[in-house]
Amino acid sequence: MNASIYPEAVRRVRPLIHSITNYVTATDCANLLLGCGARPMMADDPAEVAEITAASDGLLLNLGTPSERSVRSLKLALEAATRKGIPTVFDPVGVGASAFRRRAAAELLAIGTPSVIRGNRTEIRTLAGMIGANVSTSQNSCTAAAGVDAAATDCMSEAEVGFVCKEARALARACGAVIVVTGEIDVVTDGTRTACVRNGRPEMATVTGTGCQLTSLIAGFVASSPKEVYEATVAAVAAMGVAGEIAAERMTPADGNATYGRYLLDAVNRLTGAELAARARIEEIEGTGDET
Amino acid sequence: MNASIYPEAVRRVRPLIHSITNYVTATDCANLLLGCGARPMMADDPAEVAEITAASDGLLLNLGTPSERSVRSLKLALEAATRKGIPTVFDPVGVGASAFRRRAAAELLAIGTPSVIRGNRTEIRTLAGMIGANVSTSQNSCTAAAGVDAAATDCMSEAEVGFVCKEARALARACGAVIVVTGEIDVVTDGTRTACVRNGRPEMATVTGTGCQLTSLIAGFVASSPKEVYEATVAAVAAMGVAGEIAAERMTPADGNATYGRYLLDAVNRLTGAELAARARIEEIEGTGDET
Amino acid sequence: MNASIYPEAVRRVRPLIHSITNYVTATDCANLLLGCGARPMMADDPAEVAEITAASDGLLLNLGTPSERSVRSLKLALEAATRKGIPTVFDPVGVGASAFRRRAAAELLAIGTPSVIRGNRTEIRTLAGMIGANVSTSQNSCTAAAGVDAAATDCMSEAEVGFVCKEARALARACGAVIVVTGEIDVVTDGTRTACVRNGRPEMATVTGTGCQLTSLIAGFVASSPKEVYEATVAAVAAMGVAGEIAAERMTPADGNATYGRYLLDAVNRLTGAELAARARIEEIEGTGDET
Repeated sequence: MNASIYPEAVRRVRPLIHSITNYVTATDCANLLLGCGARPMMADDPAEVAEITAASDGLLLNLGTPSERSVRSLKLALEAATRKGIPTVFDPVGVGASAFRRRAAAELLAIGTPSVIRGNRTEIRTLAGMIGANVSTSQNSCTAAAGVDAAATDCMSEAEVGFVCKEARALARACGAVIVVTGEIDVVTDGTRTACVRNGRPEMATVTGTGCQLTSLIAGFVASSPKEVYEATVAAVAAMGVAGEIAAERMTPADGNATYGRYLLDAVNRLTGAELAARARIEEIEGTGDET
Repeated sequence: MNASIYPEAVRRVRPLIHSITNYVTATDCANLLLGCGARPMMADDPAEVAEITAASDGLLLNLGTPSERSVRSLKLALEAATRKGIPTVFDPVGVGASAFRRRAAAELLAIGTPSVIRGNRTEIRTLAGMIGANVSTSQNSCTAAAGVDAAATDCMSEAEVGFVCKEARALARACGAVIVVTGEIDVVTDGTRTACVRNGRPEMATVTGTGCQLTSLIAGFVASSPKEVYEATVAAVAAMGVAGEIAAERMTPADGNATYGRYLLDAVNRLTGAELAARARIEEIEGTGDET
Repeated sequence: MNASIYPEAVRRVRPLIHSITNYVTATDCANLLLGCGARPMMADDPAEVAEITAASDGLLLNLGTPSERSVRSLKLALEAATRKGIPTVFDPVGVGASAFRRRAAAELLAIGTPSVIRGNRTEIRTLAGMIGANVSTSQNSCTAAAGVDAAATDCMSEAEVGFVCKEARALARACGAVIVVTGEIDVVTDGTRTACVRNGRPEMATVTGTGCQLTSLIAGFVASSPKEVYEATVAAVAAMGVAGEIAAERMTPADGNATYGRYLLDAVNRLTGAELAARARIEEIEGTGDET
């Protein structure tokens, strides 16, 4: 696939992305959206979310720091987005961490199907379990509820990729969304097509909200290429990983995770389609392998 | 006017600024206030805002990420500030984006008159329309509700300055506040005096919350020079623009919007009165021109 | 004491720290926790805090930007932490600024005793007054409610150290927590042992949330060394000060408070046990002196 067209598309289209998100990563996500060429709009009150979603080009639903008020807003916004037919991207932050989050996610998925769901392996497995799409012969070595930023890179080695692809495909088919599982290797699938992306750096797990940021980037890419949800998602996953690599190349010995976080956003802002195409390591997997 | 005295005044007075603001830009606004020499105090619950405002030197009211709770707090705080007679600065973030925000703004303006209102052109026009101060022969080419950070630089060219000045003066007279309209050129007016400020850089629109930050800087300047609201506001607008220029001069090819945002805050922190006076491009407009 | 072991312990144990905190400093606190090796989990709704605390290794309670909802959560989480027996760290941000915050703090302390309480001198004195542990012959020259970030370095000179130690010990004995009073000189006491830490830089007061960040660092250190609460707290206080010094050494003339804030987090991320031991300026005070 030609990943290079998506960074250019978002800069041309400048989609307005309504983001209902958490207060820990909101600033960085807004800056990532501006940096990639999209226009962020943060609003999370039931009194206005439907109206704002109706004026937007894409909707981002993030489950971090949830409250009853924000969960009500997530649902109202998803309804409005479904009515309007704009792309929606769901980030089930820490969904395994509490019954409250699991219930919120279940209620949300009962209202509509997001275009894309992105989570780490624990989050995606929790959703799969809820929706009855879990794959029984688990080889999972992750501990549940390990913190939202925790261990993003710990949970998927090359040996496990096949199993994770199978899990992701099962969930994609069961719920109809493109599924993204992030880890050392990232997996993207629409249930039929599957891609493994081998970009990124372990330093990304030392900055809070890089998962939320990726979800924001997916929202920007998908909202500006709404007929190619799967392709735009794969491109966004690769773009975030490439940005992580570029950021790592700038680091000096005194720099730590805060500077790395700035460089990461800088790299998203500067990334061209050509650079993405040159550096993306996307492996498109033939066949599902599940039925054989 | 002598803009140089205001950065020094805020460092001498160290005003305590009670900020009721949104969670997307709160951190940067707090750092901007600390950086310019003021002392930020963030608190947004109806249970305490009146008490905190009563102990403050200035009040900042920001309409971003509003909730019923925060709107109640905005009103209670404005009441307390009016009673105490301290300067108040209102930022009607995205007021055109929802009926909820328009209603909140209307209720707020019914309670008291802020010393200063700062918005982009769409926001100021929305307020003017609400208050019956809109200028009918519109040459406005902005689209409404274009996102809170969006297109700050798109909406005012040299050709439109005269019209924007007229709009701003009409609103200033109708509501009694100093009005600031920010864009490629910034306009400040108290209804009689008007200034155009031609500082700033397009990069400022790539960082979330630079509008909120300017409003914070105005609050700091005005709270430390409360008898010169118009002059201190003009100085703050120029200071923010100059900081934007200084930040741009530090950028290297790998730097993007995140680093630019840091440099912008750094520049506010480092800005001296002498540097402001040397770089400010303030045009004071003689006469209103409206009545002729 | 051997401060060097605590930075290594947190990287080995990787404690999950449930943080109920304010939206102004949440991002930086999350990045500090990740940077020092801990795993942050932010959640503040009564619907889930008890469950999340029960799965955590440490609990951080921060009184910034409080609401009735968040105060309810602080109490539920402290209950859960007390039941589980995990370390808890309380930051009474701006407790002197409103009756609402004082009442919240009082209710919280009635539920359980935090392992550590950290505040600036005004905050600690307010708590001491509430709990009946105030020392009558005050030499305090601080003004109350001076803003949460304000004047952190103004309020304790060498001449006042003895008095502050006495105040802190009285509060430590009255409530059973390790007390940290931060200022130009930092004081840590468990009521019996007392240490003065002379690290840190005045620039730290120009960045919002460095107090909250220190409280987060204490949570990380204490949760990974729960049997040495006092020692781990002293080490965290010294580590934050050393990081502030390292950050200051990187500054160039164009850098301001925003870059300083990044360098501070970078330094926490990079700090080794050996570097901490080499640079820590910890004075352990013999005897309490109070009873003589």
